[in-house]
Amino acid sequence: MSNIFPFRCQVKLARLHAMNLILLHNDDFFTEDRVKLTDRRRQHLLSTQQVEVGKRLRVGKLNGKLGEGLVTRIDAESLELRIELTQHPPPPLAVTLLLALPRPKMLKRILQSISSLGVKQLYLINSYRVEKSFWGSPLLRAEKLDEQLLLGLEQARDTILPHVHLRQRFKPFVEDELPDLAKDTRALVAHPVAEPGEAFQPGESITLAIGPEGGFIPYEIEKLQECGFTAISLGERILRVETAVPVLLSRMMAD
Amino acid sequence: MSNIFPFRCQVKLARLHAMNLILLHNDDFFTEDRVKLTDRRRQHLLSTQQVEVGKRLRVGKLNGKLGEGLVTRIDAESLELRIELTQHPPPPLAVTLLLALPRPKMLKRILQSISSLGVKQLYLINSYRVEKSFWGSPLLRAEKLDEQLLLGLEQARDTILPHVHLRQRFKPFVEDELPDLAKDTRALVAHPVAEPGEAFQPGESITLAIGPEGGFIPYEIEKLQECGFTAISLGERILRVETAVPVLLSRMMAD
Repeated sequence: MSNIFPFRCQVKLARLHAMNLILLHNDDFFTEDRVKLTDRRRQHLLSTQQVEVGKRLRVGKLNGKLGEGLVTRIDAESLELRIELTQHPPPPLAVTLLLALPRPKMLKRILQSISSLGVKQLYLINSYRVEKSFWGSPLLRAEKLDEQLLLGLEQARDTILPHVHLRQRFKPFVEDELPDLAKDTRALVAHPVAEPGEAFQPGESITLAIGPEGGFIPYEIEKLQECGFTAISLGERILRVETAVPVLLSRMMAD
Repeated sequence: MSNIFPFRCQVKLARLHAMNLILLHNDDFFTEDRVKLTDRRRQHLLSTQQVEVGKRLRVGKLNGKLGEGLVTRIDAESLELRIELTQHPPPPLAVTLLLALPRPKMLKRILQSISSLGVKQLYLINSYRVEKSFWGSPLLRAEKLDEQLLLGLEQARDTILPHVHLRQRFKPFVEDELPDLAKDTRALVAHPVAEPGEAFQPGESITLAIGPEGGFIPYEIEKLQECGFTAISLGERILRVETAVPVLLSRMMAD
């Protein structure tokens, strides 16, 4: 296949991560409204989108506003844009998510999906059923986490980078930190054996805890309940974490 | 890591696909209520679950009922169970899903997730933005599709195998087949530029069309609208197909 359509395949492969927004960093700006791109973003614009001088692109400033970029110059090393930022990014999801650390391969996809869905506070927490070795994954380095989160922002046309907090000890986290975190929010823990049918008020502030594959153990559920959490279920079906996350967040969107 | 805990790692890796249910096929039965397992299911039960004679397991008959299996015999090649099937599988999702054929790597995960969520009718359809080569993927062979769908059933403790229909030509499908398919259902197409806020009646019969990365083209949206489809949006955020599928299906679940 790649012998027959080498160019087309390259183009399509680059699309694996849709860049629906060009995210700009402070370092990209060489004047107040002009940026120079030299990295994968330039590469993407030239090879996948066949961008030329005069083309207008959707851009956003990391942790800032959205707007338009006009391509003013393309040379062998860089691509320059004149930028006008006028719109606010889409509203965040009012959900603080506590997620038992998933296996690294799955975490990658979950980070992208969480970021694209608008979660801004993610606590990766320990649980009895989290394999200890997961905490040693290189993916947990800040710059590696950000890489996945940025892909989610580019996908969803958002600019606000989520915060990821690593909490490798369950008990101190739940006892010392969680009460303040969950205060004045609806605190929910997804648990297969809970009663189904809990309804959320769309848009209300929620703290949502999702366990590992196999679920939180009874002790952990008890600790969360002591902290004011209510157990909710998705019904008879047991879902993989990467499916349960969007299914649960979907019900918490204000739309 | 695998040098330090070789056994533990093997156990955990096997858990990548949770077998929350042992699915039994007709061929497994050597009397009306006794089965003999010799394949990956036996392997899984022995190595991951350390099953012994006398243990009771959750089982289900493919396209049949759920119940319990009592381990009656384990030898070098097989594991025997006495079976009692008493419960109905979880109710299906009343959604016929039309999905523009995703790239094979993503399709695998989407098949598992769709199957675990209870979809029973899936049409993989063509669209202008579906790369032609995807239709040549070996994953589209019936036994390969079933493999992924079975993993989803085992995950969600369901027994009813979804039907997958391949429709490689968009126009004849929409003109000749879709009108009957969508008749007496709420017909919806997910489209980023539609008005948001369409509410579903939980549990009503739905035909849902989801486009490829990049969306259906205007001609395709028009053809679907001619066939009675209403365009719905998930708001400002553009989601990857594998995230959009559970987000949309979540809103169509009965509870």
